[in-house]
Amino acid sequence: MANTNAIFTPEELLIHWQGHRNLTRKLIELFPEKELFEFSIGGMRTFAQLATEMLSMCGPGLKAIVEESSIAYSEEGIQISTKADLLQKWDEETAVINHYFNLLPVSRFAETFNLFGQYAFPVIQNIFYFIDNEIHHRGQGYVYLRALNINPPFFWER
Amino acid sequence: MANTNAIFTPEELLIHWQGHRNLTRKLIELFPEKELFEFSIGGMRTFAQLATEMLSMCGPGLKAIVEESSIAYSEEGIQISTKADLLQKWDEETAVINHYFNLLPVSRFAETFNLFGQYAFPVIQNIFYFIDNEIHHRGQGYVYLRALNINPPFFWER
Repeated sequence: MANTNAIFTPEELLIHWQGHRNLTRKLIELFPEKELFEFSIGGMRTFAQLATEMLSMCGPGLKAIVEESSIAYSEEGIQISTKADLLQKWDEETAVINHYFNLLPVSRFAETFNLFGQYAFPVIQNIFYFIDNEIHHRGQGYVYLRALNINPPFFWER
Repeated sequence: MANTNAIFTPEELLIHWQGHRNLTRKLIELFPEKELFEFSIGGMRTFAQLATEMLSMCGPGLKAIVEESSIAYSEEGIQISTKADLLQKWDEETAVINHYFNLLPVSRFAETFNLFGQYAFPVIQNIFYFIDNEIHHRGQGYVYLRALNINPPFFWER
């Protein structure tokens, strides 16, 4: 590291983030086509709906941060009805995240940005929200898979 | 921040971690006594068992990192049979984590440490594993609560 006060560099954060996204992709692959779009527990969203939230939040959110745009949160851009479509969109978003992440100057991470016109936090906190929200909902996907009698991947597989 | 390369300071990481732990505490409080120790879905562990894993990993793991001890992972130190006991242990662990975190020099975060004698990763990655593992299992607790027809707290409440 370039200095003694850095405990996590931007490069490490991106690897951490994409590692988590790669694990989520494995869960999408493991869901049977029908259950991906129909199965839920306790009135919660399906895993396809949860993945749609992740896709609507992460790439568009990071793009908005980099461009300092006040675009509102919306899931309307993501209309998916098959697992193949979802996986394709997932992979496109991987490239979008890599692209915009590398355009974000280190100085921006500590700056407050009003994400989606309503979440005014330092950029680093908004990015951790993307990651933590995905871990949270993916954990729910693990329960769906277990309830469907399907073994999920180990949590440490990235 | 003291320099331009730091995107996350130790102080911010501790606040982030304890914020997540505080949300997990709210879930423990929301579980009915019986279901906390008995309810599960798909053959998974109960939320009390998942919380026991968190307690066995986080405080003892951080203490081992600070003391550079090779103590093995064990859940034997945590024998809990009531919600009140679990909440008390949770609060004790909050103080343990604060204590040891503040003893960890910034220079250690990038150093590799063989946690529990078997997970050789940079300290920052081991700490993120503690946090991410808790978010993951707490997400599972959210499904348990929903299945029990109990409204969980908002994810952004810390």
